Amino acid sequence: MEKIPYKIYLEENEIPRQWYNVRADMKNKPAPLLNPATLQPMTASELENVFCKELVKQELDDTTAYFDIPDEIYDFYKMYRPAPLVRAYFLEKALGTPAKIYYKFEGNNTSGSHKLNSAIAQAYYAKAQGLKGVTTETGAGQWGTALSMACSFFGLDCKVFMVKCSYEQKPFRREVMRTYGASVTPSPSTETNVGRQILQEFPDTNGSLGCAISEAVEKAVSSEGYRYVLGSVLSQVVLHQSIIGLETKKALDKYNVKADIIIGCAGGGSNLGGLIAPFMGEKLRGEADYRIIAVEPASCPSLTRGKFAYDFCDTGKVCPLAKMYTLGSGFMPSANHAGGLRYHGMSSVLSQLYDDGLMEAVSVEQTEVFDAAQKFARIEGILPAPESSHAICAAVKEALKCKESGEEKTIVFGLTGTGYFDMYAYQKFNDGIMSDYIPTDDELKASLDKLPKV
Amino acid sequence: MEKIPYKIYLEENEIPRQWYNVRADMKNKPAPLLNPATLQPMTASELENVFCKELVKQELDDTTAYFDIPDEIYDFYKMYRPAPLVRAYFLEKALGTPAKIYYKFEGNNTSGSHKLNSAIAQAYYAKAQGLKGVTTETGAGQWGTALSMACSFFGLDCKVFMVKCSYEQKPFRREVMRTYGASVTPSPSTETNVGRQILQEFPDTNGSLGCAISEAVEKAVSSEGYRYVLGSVLSQVVLHQSIIGLETKKALDKYNVKADIIIGCAGGGSNLGGLIAPFMGEKLRGEADYRIIAVEPASCPSLTRGKFAYDFCDTGKVCPLAKMYTLGSGFMPSANHAGGLRYHGMSSVLSQLYDDGLMEAVSVEQTEVFDAAQKFARIEGILPAPESSHAICAAVKEALKCKESGEEKTIVFGLTGTGYFDMYAYQKFNDGIMSDYIPTDDELKASLDKLPKV
Repeated sequence: MEKIPYKIYLEENEIPRQWYNVRADMKNKPAPLLNPATLQPMTASELENVFCKELVKQELDDTTAYFDIPDEIYDFYKMYRPAPLVRAYFLEKALGTPAKIYYKFEGNNTSGSHKLNSAIAQAYYAKAQGLKGVTTETGAGQWGTALSMACSFFGLDCKVFMVKCSYEQKPFRREVMRTYGASVTPSPSTETNVGRQILQEFPDTNGSLGCAISEAVEKAVSSEGYRYVLGSVLSQVVLHQSIIGLETKKALDKYNVKADIIIGCAGGGSNLGGLIAPFMGEKLRGEADYRIIAVEPASCPSLTRGKFAYDFCDTGKVCPLAKMYTLGSGFMPSANHAGGLRYHGMSSVLSQLYDDGLMEAVSVEQTEVFDAAQKFARIEGILPAPESSHAICAAVKEALKCKESGEEKTIVFGLTGTGYFDMYAYQKFNDGIMSDYIPTDDELKASLDKLPKV
Repeated sequence: MEKIPYKIYLEENEIPRQWYNVRADMKNKPAPLLNPATLQPMTASELENVFCKELVKQELDDTTAYFDIPDEIYDFYKMYRPAPLVRAYFLEKALGTPAKIYYKFEGNNTSGSHKLNSAIAQAYYAKAQGLKGVTTETGAGQWGTALSMACSFFGLDCKVFMVKCSYEQKPFRREVMRTYGASVTPSPSTETNVGRQILQEFPDTNGSLGCAISEAVEKAVSSEGYRYVLGSVLSQVVLHQSIIGLETKKALDKYNVKADIIIGCAGGGSNLGGLIAPFMGEKLRGEADYRIIAVEPASCPSLTRGKFAYDFCDTGKVCPLAKMYTLGSGFMPSANHAGGLRYHGMSSVLSQLYDDGLMEAVSVEQTEVFDAAQKFARIEGILPAPESSHAICAAVKEALKCKESGEEKTIVFGLTGTGYFDMYAYQKFNDGIMSDYIPTDDELKASLDKLPKV
């Protein structure tokens, strides 16, 4: 058999021409977004006050299986895609496992993560609609960076509300966004009503993703020619991110490799939803079976300890309600360093698939994640983002199970990004002063008791 | 004709199996290193006190054209190579030039630059010799990071002396090295005699590359089982870095593209020497002609304003003397943000080629470099290192000349790395408070007057 190279690169003309919409193959469709005032399903025209038209269409369409990727987006993809599927030969050897480990590496672009895949799509549709600009929030900073790059490419204004603790801990992330011409405001800010309210109530708050979302939405709907864009959770994002899974599958098919286990970290679900899309499609259509594992931080365990219920997507409760696995929109995750995974809810698509028993979920603790990250960096030569390292941690555990059982399983995981802007967290780990935090049952109960009655 | 893709990736089995030693084709060989005490050419056994045996062999060999790349190094190369040769379609369009622009991108690895190509080679030979560890210095931090990764891979101890101002301005670079298990000491330090002397004389000094080299060399020769390694200037480094040029040439040949102009930034010469090696080889053998342009910072202009003479490689004068274009080992470059280019001298190989009229040199100022860097980031989607941006700046100028003349020249430049750890410098640029500095003739004269009499 042909030896599989360290990195499988597709040819440029093998980059998928269409995104795949996994909802089309789901028997139980994700529940619709609800209007927070009426508790009725959001209509297209209601959503269009907040989101770009074409994106609303994508958001509401749960039957069309494939969407063409417009040429302008496709050309941009060519700048940094195809992303390599890496065979982790060195990691396999270091673990002494018979398992074959692959990872799809999405970090080889300046945004440092997979977020660019959806950012460029959303910026394109905003531009096509003739908008002046977009607003958004960012936690770890990956989404904000990606959106800044995308907006700069299309000449759109970009206003980013950055969770205050990230804004302060990650000044260099902020500078990357500024280099791409974005304006970056620490959240909560005095620029919005909701920000001012939160500051009045909690003057010392470090901010949260839910609060930054509220501010960005308010800013968009109150500014002429602006719309709000979001880097995760929404079904349109899972659609755009399907390019990760489609490329992964094509690369595996090229070498006749069949995955057994597919693993991804899960915050709002953008990476996991995209990575698993075509595999889940086969599973839904009964064409193949895979074990699919979502990995979340033990400090913010929406799938493993949350409830499947309608909830607000933001703290300010200005956004539509989504049916999802949630810890409650008032849940304040501890200061875990994987900022991209500190969200109280989970994509409706993934939530439904999980509830239907089509995927598993596990949670891992922060220090074991950084331990896996450091080992991975030394063995495979890539310093991973804390978020991605959740998937590494779980993949290593599965590979070690194979070592015990002697099974030669094929494990594929998503390496969503690099940790070059997360060295503050690595420093804590290197200094041996990183800690773990797992919310108590009482804490979770207190937050879940406040779920809206729908 | 087949459309050239945005990124030309060689296949894994097309990674060159040998390094090319351009000295073999030089009629005028680079002058030998001299013993600072005797002013006689350094013998192999003298050099072996400081450097690894096999590397000394490579350093002294100016006749063997090709060196086999050992399997262990080749396997490591497969983790992050081949590096893409990118066709800058978007940049060409933005400039409106008929020129065809290509860049060899060496930044897609965690060290963030081409430095890893030589680091892994040097670490391998140190391991093969049975050493415990190596010492080195780092300015901008790219070489130190690369060496940390390489040492971690082979289980070698790695002691890095980091120029003090970088150590303070770039705490996150330091953390990357620590994550790879290296120990990092700000230089000048109290760990060495030369460091203590310098601190006594200049208690407030921010350090310099020349001083950090002296400390690293002293540490190596005074520690059992250690040798010193260097990321630039030396001929062995130019040899290892030839992989950049060899891949570039192979990728161009694949599409029958003939380069007209080849451009690289030049500090000590590691990138430029590697990029141009096979092209210069053709030129030396009379098989083809190319314009080859070295780009240096106006604040540290060794080729454009220095002297071709024997000089010390370090401030402490513990290293051998090299014949090179130099500003004098006592020259203190202004606080330019391209730390990797702030070196008083230049590779003996490149110095000889330049003196023989086989290549050109230009200097560019800091603010125009960052202006080019920012534009490039926005247009081509890669946020470049300040060092690499010198080459971008010069390439853009050449492309604009083509626009004026209507010539469809093919320009190839080296994009040596990413600027993710240089956001402090970008911040200054974004805030509009970056300045330029060009040394006066008197300043240069004062330094050049102190060149050793050889």
